[in-house]
Amino acid sequence: MSEQINVPRRRVMAAAGAAAAWVGVGGVARADSTEPASQSNPGPVSAAKPLPDYAKWKNADSLIVHSANTIETRRDAFGSSVVTPLDRLFVRNNVSPPSESIMADPDSWALEVNGVGKPATLTVAQLKTLGLQALPMVLQCSGNGRAYFPHKPGGTQWQVGAAGCVIFTGVPVAAVVKALGGVADGMVYMTGTGGEEIPAGLDPNTVRVERSVPLEAMKDAILAWEVNGEPLPLAHGGPLRLIVPGYTGVNNVKYLKQLAFTKEQSPASIQQNSYRMTDIGVKGGPKFPAVWEMPPKSWVTLPSDPAKPIKAGKVVITGLAMGGVDAATKIEVSVNGGKDWQEAQFVGPDLGKYAWRQFALTADLKPGSYNIASRTTNAKGETQPADRVENNRGYNNNSWRDHMVAIKVV
Amino acid sequence: MSEQINVPRRRVMAAAGAAAAWVGVGGVARADSTEPASQSNPGPVSAAKPLPDYAKWKNADSLIVHSANTIETRRDAFGSSVVTPLDRLFVRNNVSPPSESIMADPDSWALEVNGVGKPATLTVAQLKTLGLQALPMVLQCSGNGRAYFPHKPGGTQWQVGAAGCVIFTGVPVAAVVKALGGVADGMVYMTGTGGEEIPAGLDPNTVRVERSVPLEAMKDAILAWEVNGEPLPLAHGGPLRLIVPGYTGVNNVKYLKQLAFTKEQSPASIQQNSYRMTDIGVKGGPKFPAVWEMPPKSWVTLPSDPAKPIKAGKVVITGLAMGGVDAATKIEVSVNGGKDWQEAQFVGPDLGKYAWRQFALTADLKPGSYNIASRTTNAKGETQPADRVENNRGYNNNSWRDHMVAIKVV
Repeated sequence: MSEQINVPRRRVMAAAGAAAAWVGVGGVARADSTEPASQSNPGPVSAAKPLPDYAKWKNADSLIVHSANTIETRRDAFGSSVVTPLDRLFVRNNVSPPSESIMADPDSWALEVNGVGKPATLTVAQLKTLGLQALPMVLQCSGNGRAYFPHKPGGTQWQVGAAGCVIFTGVPVAAVVKALGGVADGMVYMTGTGGEEIPAGLDPNTVRVERSVPLEAMKDAILAWEVNGEPLPLAHGGPLRLIVPGYTGVNNVKYLKQLAFTKEQSPASIQQNSYRMTDIGVKGGPKFPAVWEMPPKSWVTLPSDPAKPIKAGKVVITGLAMGGVDAATKIEVSVNGGKDWQEAQFVGPDLGKYAWRQFALTADLKPGSYNIASRTTNAKGETQPADRVENNRGYNNNSWRDHMVAIKVV
Repeated sequence: MSEQINVPRRRVMAAAGAAAAWVGVGGVARADSTEPASQSNPGPVSAAKPLPDYAKWKNADSLIVHSANTIETRRDAFGSSVVTPLDRLFVRNNVSPPSESIMADPDSWALEVNGVGKPATLTVAQLKTLGLQALPMVLQCSGNGRAYFPHKPGGTQWQVGAAGCVIFTGVPVAAVVKALGGVADGMVYMTGTGGEEIPAGLDPNTVRVERSVPLEAMKDAILAWEVNGEPLPLAHGGPLRLIVPGYTGVNNVKYLKQLAFTKEQSPASIQQNSYRMTDIGVKGGPKFPAVWEMPPKSWVTLPSDPAKPIKAGKVVITGLAMGGVDAATKIEVSVNGGKDWQEAQFVGPDLGKYAWRQFALTADLKPGSYNIASRTTNAKGETQPADRVENNRGYNNNSWRDHMVAIKVV
């Protein structure tokens, strides 16, 4: 099938410079450890650092640049059209992306598929003959909300913006597996391997981005070559990315060069040691729970800037609610710090259980100070909790109290 | 409510040049009459003309620039993620857009509302306190498909690309009307007036973009300040646009400065004489049917380039199907010029009845020539016809035969 969509010229031009030089080890962005850590109601942080070359095409005014590999969306910049514009979507690379040259002919990118009846190497052009699916979903970094942990975990101090709702398009993994004779007997995990370059002299397992998820996650997973109607850019994992809806960002492996069905989890450090839920002070390891499925979560988007008082009267409070692996089905808002809650309305289209919903509540606010919070409940009946689950690295923060905003009305 | 979304910098910079100088009269883009007219299977036309300053931020490779005020999406550039990326969305201005300076403070843009219990002038900031809705919908120029009329009607020779599916966000018209005491007694039409500058010395009715639609169209209409999560850019009618889902593009008035409920249709020429369905050779006038609701329509997007043969074997044929004011509920594809039809599958999310659906059909194609067509049926049971409704100005072309593509398989 002839695929004639071109990479936007501005992207190619922006990436003509050198790729960012920073390379992380073991998937931990220690370079960010000087970022400000948790504080109550941290306001928007201005984008003091420049966008890296591979993401120069993004809208700087809507973003907070933490480092060359960690960029988040400002709380007030998500818009209210459900889908997050690509130029406002967060970026998180565990190691630096490969050279932009891999985007010159995306259809020729090759994927090795193992752990199936007939292992094979397929190009993107071949994958495009096997099926098509467009999948709206929340892409969220495991550490989104880390800035609100009081023990100041290492890693990027994400507030709310290491998340977006986008539409990935590609072929269902199930269709690829079916074409290759099905999953081999006895396999328990789906393992994706990223195509980042591994610096010479390093043990690949310390750097390689290789993640395993339970086999059942294959059900709705796709291999994506497009996002929001544009060819998947390098910054978001192009030419090919493994998309596992409902699972945190790291499980959606970029620059996918191998998909394997395996009996064991990957031996890579990013699987064995990182992204594990451990008590504060305890290092991760294979015996601790892996960070996989996302819990239900919501936050208010507007008004959200403590530094900008708003006018008394009718105020439309807006926000976003996601259900995790189940749909968000209920949303409540409090303007008094969680003492009283009112049910808010979902507005706009329902893009399916993996997408977020927008919500709005019209409140009549007199001059004064307000602590505005939201909490969502999903189809399984799980409600977003008041308190975060404390953990060493600051993963999966879905505390409504941590995401509350203090607003002045004048 | 404090709205902190900034206009992307690249747009402001791109618009720093002078605005396009061309001004149409009476809403007809006569400047385009040298464009090639109908031919069977016209292939993609390369973008020979430059993008106008107010649309410089768009992706030139995905577009065909007919004139400064008429730009369409290439057939192969819609993507497969349902929502059309903003930088690939078509542009059609009946007269040149106002100065970019009106975007400096979009919240201060004022709208006069008449024909209601309590007429008032409301700023966008005030409108934002009245409600929120996000509305996915097909925006399509009345003349989309004009290039396929054999009698070569005047006006832009649009092929398939004067259409896109986008998510507009704003306040429901119904909420605004409710806040202003309801529609005044006896009103029959909803009339929107654009804020374009009217050159001195001209009778305003010959130039003014003022359109009336039946009152019932108010039901799902919104006043939009955002599209696809970004502040509505000038090229698409920002700061404020009247959105009437299911109605052709011209009825979605840009730079909206007045919304009125009226007993009569607007006296403007664009309402009285243009956008009327008349027999070939007959000039428009108020006694002829107005171009309002869109009929069901679909077209194949890939493969679609007769100049690029595709490889024999499994081919995923993709396309778009819209139902008009009712949902598209069925889609069929033919690979032999309409002799035989197979039902194709809708893929991806259903964004509601005003949005289009994507479809895909996997065909096993041997080397040879194929005429690939699609036809859709909507919830009301209306099926896209083989033949266009002939009319003087070339409006509302939804003929499946006209939209068929000739493809070589090698």
